Amino acid sequence: MTDAREMLDASPTGVPLGVAEVAAAIDACLDCVQSCTSCADSDLVEPDVQEMRACIALCLTCADVCGLVARILSRPAQSDHVVVDRLLQACVRECTLCAEECDRHAEHHRHCAICAKACRACEAACKSLTDAEVLRELEKLA
Amino acid sequence: MTDAREMLDASPTGVPLGVAEVAAAIDACLDCVQSCTSCADSDLVEPDVQEMRACIALCLTCADVCGLVARILSRPAQSDHVVVDRLLQACVRECTLCAEECDRHAEHHRHCAICAKACRACEAACKSLTDAEVLRELEKLA
Amino acid sequence: MTDAREMLDASPTGVPLGVAEVAAAIDACLDCVQSCTSCADSDLVEPDVQEMRACIALCLTCADVCGLVARILSRPAQSDHVVVDRLLQACVRECTLCAEECDRHAEHHRHCAICAKACRACEAACKSLTDAEVLRELEKLA
Amino acid sequence: MTDAREMLDASPTGVPLGVAEVAAAIDACLDCVQSCTSCADSDLVEPDVQEMRACIALCLTCADVCGLVARILSRPAQSDHVVVDRLLQACVRECTLCAEECDRHAEHHRHCAICAKACRACEAACKSLTDAEVLRELEKLA
Repeated sequence: MTDAREMLDASPTGVPLGVAEVAAAIDACLDCVQSCTSCADSDLVEPDVQEMRACIALCLTCADVCGLVARILSRPAQSDHVVVDRLLQACVRECTLCAEECDRHAEHHRHCAICAKACRACEAACKSLTDAEVLRELEKLA
Repeated sequence: MTDAREMLDASPTGVPLGVAEVAAAIDACLDCVQSCTSCADSDLVEPDVQEMRACIALCLTCADVCGLVARILSRPAQSDHVVVDRLLQACVRECTLCAEECDRHAEHHRHCAICAKACRACEAACKSLTDAEVLRELEKLA
Repeated sequence: MTDAREMLDASPTGVPLGVAEVAAAIDACLDCVQSCTSCADSDLVEPDVQEMRACIALCLTCADVCGLVARILSRPAQSDHVVVDRLLQACVRECTLCAEECDRHAEHHRHCAICAKACRACEAACKSLTDAEVLRELEKLA
Repeated sequence: MTDAREMLDASPTGVPLGVAEVAAAIDACLDCVQSCTSCADSDLVEPDVQEMRACIALCLTCADVCGLVARILSRPAQSDHVVVDRLLQACVRECTLCAEECDRHAEHHRHCAICAKACRACEAACKSLTDAEVLRELEKLA
């Protein structure tokens, strides 16, 4: 069991969405912060830096967005549904864009291949939370 | 092998300090970001919040410092020795203070017990890097 | 003219939305990072900390969200419309919530009065950008 | 009077160092976050991106370090002397390096000229705080 899951289980208020899914999303976001930060750093010293501009820009923003989402999801006791939902949407979108760009360079840059995988994992983990959000909203309307 | 280690191994320039130690420190820092953020969030809803003030304040700063160190260590290609050293010193100190305070509440708050462990692990991981830095400096002088 | 406006004017690609509005939103976000961080720090040492829990929690998240939005808006050269829009929505919502809570304590805590003002200013500045986004979308459809 | 100064004046505990100097350092750090983030974004779309690699890398780290220092200084109620001192040292060093690199490109890139100025201002503001720290330490020993 990861630390994130242990910490969420120890929260006095519990976690509004599925605790396993939230813990998985936190872990995926933190992985993505690391991969994207390292990928941009590596891109900058590659001989083909001209071709890596979009990759660097996307990695920088992806690291920042994932870093925020990891923090927001780590605060279940007092979080707002709308804020969490919009941040998850932004994160899913940014991870998708970053994964697509990294995939383009995956064959000649190993750091891009690893980073693309981390982005896809984070996209999936956050997507599953937004879907859960949607379901909860539908239940309220039913 | 963690993602951090994989990403560092894929860096075109390699890692100036020991790569295993740097990857371990990154992982420990990211764990600490999560634990400290969640611990402060949980503290805020505990009935004894009056007694948790110092814990909250230390957790907030510890999360911020560890988050920065994780990013700096994830950029091996172009990092400055002095900056890394001072940030590691700040991180070791903050993790020590936060672990001591969390330990005081570990018996009645499970989130503090888990968080103290994460802080100690991060303190140790960053300490081993500052020691390596010191050794490198001594070698230069020899 | 603020630094943010000067920097945006110096961007090789220009700014997709109105440059004055984006610069104003960046400045308002950075103000809010500062006010919310200080307000939470002050709340924690007030004698009525029990009543300040929601204020602390909202200030922490508001500082984080505003900090991210300031960074994203400072990168006009390569930003994604959907990501920016969702982050602005999250920011407007978080600033509204934080301003409302701070307003409740504004009479007895001066830091809450100042912070509420900063949150309202940030809410307005980001709202004007989301409205601009909406207009741009409508223009595309027309 | 800036918001930062107003917030620090409203802190229940007061500010350990000179309040005007701390407020000035916070403002300079936040300016630097903005300038460095925008400068890296602009560098990435310049035709001579090959020559801007070091500038991008330094701007990214400078933005992160300054962002952390702004937050730490905005929490006067419960801050640790050693942590603040080490972070200020890291910030002074990073701002110096970033200003030097930006200066090299100031003639052909206006964003680098503005960013160099912001880095120098932040370097000076943080330097004056570390000097104040040193004086305080000397007083203790006297």
